[in-house]
Amino acid sequence: MGKALIIGCGGVASVAIHKCCQNSSEFSEICIASRTKSKCDALKAKLDGGNTKISTAQVDADNVDELVTLIENFKPDVVLNLALPYQDLTIMDACLKTKTHYVDTANYEPPETAHFEYKWQWAYRDRFKDAGITALLGSGFDPGVTGVFSAYAVKHEFDTIEYIDILDCNAGDHGYPFATNFNPEINIREVSAKGSYWEDGKWVYTEPMEIKRVYNFPEIGPKDMYLLHHEELESLGLNVPGIKRIRFFMTFGQSYLTHLKCLENVGMTSIEPIDFEGKKIIPLQFLKAVLPDPASLGPRTKGKTNIGCIFQGKKDGKDKKLYIYNVCDHQECYKEVGSQAISYTTGVPAMIGAMLVMNGTWNKPGVYNIEEFDPDPFMDALNRWGLPWKVSREPELVE
Amino acid sequence: MGKALIIGCGGVASVAIHKCCQNSSEFSEICIASRTKSKCDALKAKLDGGNTKISTAQVDADNVDELVTLIENFKPDVVLNLALPYQDLTIMDACLKTKTHYVDTANYEPPETAHFEYKWQWAYRDRFKDAGITALLGSGFDPGVTGVFSAYAVKHEFDTIEYIDILDCNAGDHGYPFATNFNPEINIREVSAKGSYWEDGKWVYTEPMEIKRVYNFPEIGPKDMYLLHHEELESLGLNVPGIKRIRFFMTFGQSYLTHLKCLENVGMTSIEPIDFEGKKIIPLQFLKAVLPDPASLGPRTKGKTNIGCIFQGKKDGKDKKLYIYNVCDHQECYKEVGSQAISYTTGVPAMIGAMLVMNGTWNKPGVYNIEEFDPDPFMDALNRWGLPWKVSREPELVE
Repeated sequence: MGKALIIGCGGVASVAIHKCCQNSSEFSEICIASRTKSKCDALKAKLDGGNTKISTAQVDADNVDELVTLIENFKPDVVLNLALPYQDLTIMDACLKTKTHYVDTANYEPPETAHFEYKWQWAYRDRFKDAGITALLGSGFDPGVTGVFSAYAVKHEFDTIEYIDILDCNAGDHGYPFATNFNPEINIREVSAKGSYWEDGKWVYTEPMEIKRVYNFPEIGPKDMYLLHHEELESLGLNVPGIKRIRFFMTFGQSYLTHLKCLENVGMTSIEPIDFEGKKIIPLQFLKAVLPDPASLGPRTKGKTNIGCIFQGKKDGKDKKLYIYNVCDHQECYKEVGSQAISYTTGVPAMIGAMLVMNGTWNKPGVYNIEEFDPDPFMDALNRWGLPWKVSREPELVE
Repeated sequence: MGKALIIGCGGVASVAIHKCCQNSSEFSEICIASRTKSKCDALKAKLDGGNTKISTAQVDADNVDELVTLIENFKPDVVLNLALPYQDLTIMDACLKTKTHYVDTANYEPPETAHFEYKWQWAYRDRFKDAGITALLGSGFDPGVTGVFSAYAVKHEFDTIEYIDILDCNAGDHGYPFATNFNPEINIREVSAKGSYWEDGKWVYTEPMEIKRVYNFPEIGPKDMYLLHHEELESLGLNVPGIKRIRFFMTFGQSYLTHLKCLENVGMTSIEPIDFEGKKIIPLQFLKAVLPDPASLGPRTKGKTNIGCIFQGKKDGKDKKLYIYNVCDHQECYKEVGSQAISYTTGVPAMIGAMLVMNGTWNKPGVYNIEEFDPDPFMDALNRWGLPWKVSREPELVE
């Protein structure tokens, strides 16, 4: 029985809020707050009538005073931050001022550098500890469930873990030759950025898309994956004892990459404005207007995601290897909560993290990444709330 | 010693006008007329000082009366039409009214159907004959030189020609991942239109880009080619006695086709306007604004074109096969006349056709396609004016 303030009303927030309402014995009351209150009201109208009491509010998450007023009025047990990563620090500031627990899914990045690192949020450790409140960072899927899987592997499956490969496979098909699941600018930044991984206590950098692997995924089959930097590498590299190397791979289909490359080649992904009929237009903005609206992909996306971690290490003096993963079906997610698996796999862990902090199962004053908590209650909740996990003893690298 | 009125002032016209000025013993006087007189004046300023007297005029080539007035004032021996194909008929009407010879490079297409056929211009045959004036249709390279090569093969090399394959190979490289030599809308229409060829007295239709061949071109090497419809098939199918099949192939590189396909897939080649920041914008128009200006490709295009015809037939009762072709170097063209080979290979034959009609070498009242004239003086002029031709006895189909 607790009260949660949920800030943000996008795709992930919508899933988390659906899940809070399904879990009304924990979430007796929620407030949905975002810059655009009408979006919150529309979601409330859809979900009202269950056992969770829903209110809504308008808030500018860049404004600490507004956030403080909102928290003081609603008096939540936890704030679940599903706004933009740029707003993590203002929301943490408001939690400090009101001594309220804090949960998010993505780490802070300064808008001007567009480079994400934990250092900004880790700098709040002492203040959260002194205030006696818990900040749980990165309670989505990756980061999030991948950290919980790692903590579980450390606790139950291995004496030491030497290697972790995080695999993020989306085998969904929306039927368009090309479309992006979210802002194409972020997609483009991902595939055109240098990759990096953590090895022997330091970062190793790669050329963009330099390292390719093909994995044969349970329930999906073989898929091309490319090594990228990803934010959980930073915390897992520190929090998994004895780790030698940790890497992150994401699926990109050849057709997707070809389209993106062609669009980049002709200048359509540029953020430099051009003169067009007396107007300054940014080509990438125009491209976004031509592409299918990401929100329209949900109902038409078929297929599954498979996200998990391959762990390699020692148990009882012997080599051991296993793959802990979840498979999620786009259409089933859409049927259940009106969003496909990309939002679903982030929104469900957000609800679970908020629940565990709210009900005191996870109570550790300070600022912590998810793998620093006991994984067992989270692992149980995943099975219960729609993201059941499995273990494969033979993860298969095809090439 | 004659006077030519040249209508149009684009890339091809610029080459033809440079060539007229080089050939001042034939072209003692020219008038350059177009909708935008400043373009004509700029070209005149560049070329003035030689032995050809140059004047300029503003004219709306859609307006027969304006054209008649211009012709009556200038009193040319020939009108060389290098305006848009939509304007062929108005210019022919003006030539009829003033009894002036007519030469063009591309056949009429009604703006609304965008489908080119000779029937519109062939309908002028009796009127031109009665007026005692000659209309020479299609005096570019293809159509144009390909028809002259055909007439030459009929006259000198074969007893009967059964098969003609016209090969249009552009191995030029502008160094951009993607750019179009002219309006990308026309490029896109070409590769997305059904193909067709003439066989046994009728048209055979193919899917877009269905038929691919790889030819090993002299001075270039092997290149991918695709069967397209092209306007000279219509006249050559009628004018080459005993012809069984005539086809047209054009080179398209894999990278070019991939870019075009991706742009089409995402909707960037669409001509349906979309709403963008309160403005209706046609995606193709925006794409054109992002792509390199075709005019900027000239100075940076390297490599050669190889355009010609493979003839197969009988001579003295034996099978015979040969390839008559021209090789043209983009950079050498640019050095000579400030345009690359695409414009050069059309502009030079335009000048030659106008010369032969103007000086009476080709004098045949009526409306005729280029293969209906004696090819020998044209073949000599090609060697003299920058498009020397060669004969290969072993044209090589790679696959």
